[in-house]
Amino acid sequence: MIKVVLDCFGGDHSPDANIDGAVRALSELTDLHLILTGDEAILKEKLTGKDFDASRVTIVHAPDVIDTSMKPTDAIRLQKESSMMKAVKLLRTDEADALVSLGATGALVSAALLRIGRLKNVIRPAFCPILPTMTGGIVGICDTGANVDITPDHIQQYAVMASLYLECVYGIESPRVALLNVGVEEEKGDDLHKNAYQLLKNTPGIRFIGNMESRELLSGDIDLVVADGFSGNVLVKTTEGTALELLKKLKKDIYSKTIYKIGAGLMKKMFMEEKEFMNYQNYGGSVLLGTAKVVVKGHGSSKAVAVYKCIEQAYRMEKTELNGRIEDALTAIANEPWHEAQRKREVMRFRRRIFRRRCAGSQMRD
Amino acid sequence: MIKVVLDCFGGDHSPDANIDGAVRALSELTDLHLILTGDEAILKEKLTGKDFDASRVTIVHAPDVIDTSMKPTDAIRLQKESSMMKAVKLLRTDEADALVSLGATGALVSAALLRIGRLKNVIRPAFCPILPTMTGGIVGICDTGANVDITPDHIQQYAVMASLYLECVYGIESPRVALLNVGVEEEKGDDLHKNAYQLLKNTPGIRFIGNMESRELLSGDIDLVVADGFSGNVLVKTTEGTALELLKKLKKDIYSKTIYKIGAGLMKKMFMEEKEFMNYQNYGGSVLLGTAKVVVKGHGSSKAVAVYKCIEQAYRMEKTELNGRIEDALTAIANEPWHEAQRKREVMRFRRRIFRRRCAGSQMRD
Repeated sequence: MIKVVLDCFGGDHSPDANIDGAVRALSELTDLHLILTGDEAILKEKLTGKDFDASRVTIVHAPDVIDTSMKPTDAIRLQKESSMMKAVKLLRTDEADALVSLGATGALVSAALLRIGRLKNVIRPAFCPILPTMTGGIVGICDTGANVDITPDHIQQYAVMASLYLECVYGIESPRVALLNVGVEEEKGDDLHKNAYQLLKNTPGIRFIGNMESRELLSGDIDLVVADGFSGNVLVKTTEGTALELLKKLKKDIYSKTIYKIGAGLMKKMFMEEKEFMNYQNYGGSVLLGTAKVVVKGHGSSKAVAVYKCIEQAYRMEKTELNGRIEDALTAIANEPWHEAQRKREVMRFRRRIFRRRCAGSQMRD
Repeated sequence: MIKVVLDCFGGDHSPDANIDGAVRALSELTDLHLILTGDEAILKEKLTGKDFDASRVTIVHAPDVIDTSMKPTDAIRLQKESSMMKAVKLLRTDEADALVSLGATGALVSAALLRIGRLKNVIRPAFCPILPTMTGGIVGICDTGANVDITPDHIQQYAVMASLYLECVYGIESPRVALLNVGVEEEKGDDLHKNAYQLLKNTPGIRFIGNMESRELLSGDIDLVVADGFSGNVLVKTTEGTALELLKKLKKDIYSKTIYKIGAGLMKKMFMEEKEFMNYQNYGGSVLLGTAKVVVKGHGSSKAVAVYKCIEQAYRMEKTELNGRIEDALTAIANEPWHEAQRKREVMRFRRRIFRRRCAGSQMRD
């Protein structure tokens, strides 16, 4: 039995979307046990009349909802009775194997780091959301903002962790990994990316295909994009933003003339499919790779289908023992003298470059 | 008379697109003098039969075309007879006021830096392309990849230079400037962006409206996005890539069924307008701000209309004396003790943060 705890509050459509997603997950995944955290009275009322196997559901009472405006560290300290922190506590005490939450990202990342901790040899956990490609497949992006100030070995770990994630959860064998950069040539980019490239080129167990430019993201030629959290964040949000704005414009233009409305009427099915294809709700949440227990962060605006997908992601990660594999792979790299030496070399090179640049800068301009 | 030199080779559609763009520019801008660099025999042949004022055109013979595969510094040194380097030389010797080229970006940036030089007080020149917004306006993005390893004061200068550019060339009064970041709150982002935020907040003469997330780019609420060259590059290429991939998918889906083809037939005019709206050819090139002479880099795939727009951009920049204004604004900031002190403070803070982090990292992990 795989025990997943679902934080039932904190999303825009909580708790209804969470409950509906939970009920669907229970019917589709037969060895899933769900622990629901949140206001017990509300949860019980919402569950009344739904058709599900009650023996596989536990409710843990948590009267509060996490406050998104609060500083993450304050939220952890002061909001112990919130549905999110109660869920985190269940993970910490081994009463649950995995956690799904739609609540405040900052609080969740901080709680995961401070309360649950990292897997052995993991420097920093990282986010890995999934986007659909134009060829009908998917592409993973790691990291998209869990960490912003990093060194080249962070990116190396993202490649190892997310490759295993795509293999285990999506069945993509030996995913093609590309480094997000400003050009495809080996010597492109800033110090961080130049050193990361050298490290990725010699990392065992991954299929590194070189640098990529962001315009290739949806082409289907890449399975996994590794990026520093800052540009990874820009990449994902720009893709979402552009797609949404274009659809909005298209809709507005269609409504501007009767003839367009008639034309669009004939194409209704196609437009619906298009919309469904681009609906991020169908691709689940952003998993946090590298934490000691499985953590999945769903979009704040998740509806039932997205909640279900998030639970399924968490379930599969646990079922395929992803965390154990990540630990093994990173330990193997750390124990292999040649690779470990190279890791240290590239990180030191990066630091020296940064240092030299700062010194040169201060002579030149101050 | 404003003298613009046009590098007639190096683009995908050169020299035909360049010649046609030049002819249009000559007819629309009456006090423009164009110097065309490239193979004289070819250029003369292509110009035959075109209707233009020959007294405002000079041809400078340059038998070579810049080699995009060559390292930029080698290209400058070894390809002196190329149309690009000849054009750069004309700028250097004051025979021309401004330069338009569609050739290799790396070579052009290096040549601009090493042969033409920077304006007084400019740390590094930066690119500033323009994109259309969904409300029918435009948004500028500075920088998109001229520099990747930077300090907070680079970003401050981008804001000053590009604000003046939007005012002079596009008539946008007091443009709303936003800093590209991973969240809108003041404390978001890495060290670079945190310090840049503080600097921008106190920069005189610009209208800083705070951080922005990349999904707001096309909303029309922002006139100018300032970004480090790396994430700015990701921002622009992702926007272009997503729009193109979506249009491609739409087209493919339309051709999959007869009923869709009929529907699309009724909407043909709308789709054409949509395509035209998103066609980057209509928005000119990426100007390089901060060089001692005006330099405009057109897209390699520019057609005649894009070449014309590039020439127009260069012409307007020179006509409105943009470079003089940039120099005045940056000198004013440098001479104002309080702002200069703040600039140094934020840069030093950034360096110290980086240094501390590197030290902490090396204790923790090595």
